[in-house]
Amino acid sequence: MKIILVGASGDVGRAAYSELSKRHDIVRAGRSTGDVSVDIGDRQSIGAMYDAVGTFDAVVSTAGNVHFAPLAEYTEATFRVGLDNKVMGQINLVLEGLKRISDHGSFTLTSGVLDRDPVVSGTSAATANGALAGFVTGAAIEQQRGIRINVVSPGLLEASEARYGAFFPGHERVSSEKVGRAFAKCVEGAVTGQVVTVG
Amino acid sequence: MKIILVGASGDVGRAAYSELSKRHDIVRAGRSTGDVSVDIGDRQSIGAMYDAVGTFDAVVSTAGNVHFAPLAEYTEATFRVGLDNKVMGQINLVLEGLKRISDHGSFTLTSGVLDRDPVVSGTSAATANGALAGFVTGAAIEQQRGIRINVVSPGLLEASEARYGAFFPGHERVSSEKVGRAFAKCVEGAVTGQVVTVG
Ligand SMILES: NC(=O)c1ccc[n+]([C@@H]2O[C@H](COP(=O)([O-])OP(=O)(O)OC[C@H]3O[C@@H](n4cnc5c(N)ncnc54)[C@H](OP(=O)(O)O)[C@@H]3O)[C@@H](O)[C@H]2O)c1
Ligand SMILES: NC(=O)c1ccc[n+]([C@@H]2O[C@H](COP(=O)([O-])OP(=O)(O)OC[C@H]3O[C@@H](n4cnc5c(N)ncnc54)[C@H](OP(=O)(O)O)[C@@H]3O)[C@@H](O)[C@H]2O)c1
Repeated sequence: MKIILVGASGDVGRAAYSELSKRHDIVRAGRSTGDVSVDIGDRQSIGAMYDAVGTFDAVVSTAGNVHFAPLAEYTEATFRVGLDNKVMGQINLVLEGLKRISDHGSFTLTSGVLDRDPVVSGTSAATANGALAGFVTGAAIEQQRGIRINVVSPGLLEASEARYGAFFPGHERVSSEKVGRAFAKCVEGAVTGQVVTVG
Repeated sequence: MKIILVGASGDVGRAAYSELSKRHDIVRAGRSTGDVSVDIGDRQSIGAMYDAVGTFDAVVSTAGNVHFAPLAEYTEATFRVGLDNKVMGQINLVLEGLKRISDHGSFTLTSGVLDRDPVVSGTSAATANGALAGFVTGAAIEQQRGIRINVVSPGLLEASEARYGAFFPGHERVSSEKVGRAFAKCVEGAVTGQVVTVG
């Protein structure tokens, strides 16, 4: 399969790449890294990426920014980062990609553990993750041409301990191998409309 | 208790009002209806509403717009209505209200059935509902002063059959009495961080 992997250079993206690149052609995408450039915060840039890539069989998104802060310190602008980038950005990857993806293709997005196992300062991430779960639930039943859509919800990666560990006291850390397999399940398996949790 | 009910004139709002007004003082709020005026799409207007009301013990929100459309027909603007109004509007009611609500107060928001039982054209609503579930999960664990926060997720109301029935083939319709009791459970009970489903 030819798979576009948005956010390939990140911690989650590298986990997906390691597993999927064993069996598939991967086009890596990011703002400043990868084979093709895209800013998921800008829908036109998403269209331009798809035009540059041509035909493809699957999109895996492991990109999406969100702001961490104690609830009382969120401004509307900081709270909105997650809704605009992680949620609307990934949804725009789907809305634009649906026009071009091959029959029996799939979209796999990334959320995270915080809507099922919350931590202090993680409310905007919990909101974004819940939104993505609702999105795939709703979008999956409208798919045609055998297209599937899922979201992987990983716990904190071992690889991200140094950056985010302090926010996640007592949370089980998950290996990149396990996270990679969740993406393989979504891309190579038959599930649709699912939140595939890891850890 | 003195309860601010935003969206009191709507179908869900009237269900909440019927039950809660038996035992509490209700301040009804809406853009053009009610005792006090507010547009939840405008954070300044939310602050002005709280200033006008003074002290209060609970906020119940039964307002929140969302656009229904087949997935392929959503533009970014139509998809965003739900994120901006139903999600960010209700979250802003909480973020602004937290500064002023009485000790042991509560916030109760409204989502809906579509993130657990999807229908065609309901993807933006499913996304908004999931976001609100994630929000209360995250926000509840950071509350102080005994403040609680929940969301009521009703199925289609019998009272809304004429407006929305065609979108919900085979869904159980729920009575306004049952919906009213879910709001009473959130306001008068002790749960927090919960999605209280009806139907
Ligand atoms: N790390 C974890 O433990 C973990 C666990 C659960 C969930 N998550 C979620 O997974 C997602 C990725 O996390 P991560 O830790 O892997 O992030 P990361 O290491 O910071 O990597 C982010 C990746 O996305 C790309 N990117 C960032 N903004 C972009 C944009 N606007 N448009 C296109 N590409 C963009 C980056 O490349 P460029 O800089 O070139 O754009 C990079 O490849 C986040 O939503 C995060 O909440 C992470
Ligand atoms: N009806 C159902 O069966 C059902 C089931 C599940 C979930 N829901 C959800 O419940 C919420 C309310 O639905 P509904 O059917 O009760 O709606 P509705 O009958 O149209 O009533 C909406 C209420 O909210 C107020 N309102 C609308 N926009 C507002 C804004 N920007 N700021 C402040 N107040 C605003 C309206 O008063 P003004 O016009 O004066 O502003 C009215 O009181 C929606 O999010 C809906 O998705 C509804």
